[in-house]
Amino acid sequence: MRANVSFITLGVTDVAASTSFYQALGLVTHPRSNEHITFFDMSGQILGLFSAASLAEDAGLGPRSEGFGGIALAHNVATEEEVQKLIDLAVAAGGSQLRPASEPPWGGLRGYFADLDGHPWEVACNPGITIEQDGSVSF
Amino acid sequence: MRANVSFITLGVTDVAASTSFYQALGLVTHPRSNEHITFFDMSGQILGLFSAASLAEDAGLGPRSEGFGGIALAHNVATEEEVQKLIDLAVAAGGSQLRPASEPPWGGLRGYFADLDGHPWEVACNPGITIEQDGSVSF
Repeated sequence: MRANVSFITLGVTDVAASTSFYQALGLVTHPRSNEHITFFDMSGQILGLFSAASLAEDAGLGPRSEGFGGIALAHNVATEEEVQKLIDLAVAAGGSQLRPASEPPWGGLRGYFADLDGHPWEVACNPGITIEQDGSVSF
Repeated sequence: MRANVSFITLGVTDVAASTSFYQALGLVTHPRSNEHITFFDMSGQILGLFSAASLAEDAGLGPRSEGFGGIALAHNVATEEEVQKLIDLAVAAGGSQLRPASEPPWGGLRGYFADLDGHPWEVACNPGITIEQDGSVSF
């Protein structure tokens, strides 16, 4: 296995509504999106929005469970001010705040929001993480 | 929000065991990993393995639910032969096969495995997706 995650697919209830949510956060849909699936080009990786039921079926799994699914995505930002600002934007777009911008024990500032289907996103400003010009991170 | 997912954190039961699992698939741990968290540098993105309970607490969520959490990760490979080979490697390392290499309605070849905590990974060979030299994908 090479060191790449090619796609992250979020199972959602309503692809159109979730697409609008992520567009409101600033993401741009890929032209190969269609009514069944939305693609966002995440700089060399694709973020997909697909019916949770169809995703479960394709993966050979039962229906999605309620509650925390055990995976969190994180979006690192360059300044502390951007942390709460992005969480507020997510809430304005119909998401929910899970944790306001606050200091974790390991330094920096982070908060969490959930998208329309409860998928958790951490928004973090961490001085120990370098964000490159193209948005990739290293430390 | 810029078009980047900085971190993907998988909530796991046993960080050491899960670290061994992903190492067996070929990933290399980042030197800043410690007993509480493992980091893999995924070419500009970090994949983390962290206690599911600690991740839930940090995100302000209840404990992880049983069953499908609603997110699937995918690793695209260059040849059809590599699809079942990587699934077999995952099974040999203690994971499970969710779906053997087979043809989805949209073309190409894909299968799924689950890691030690049931997180689903699709392994796909899709001729419509270009895999760059650094492993990033575009279409």
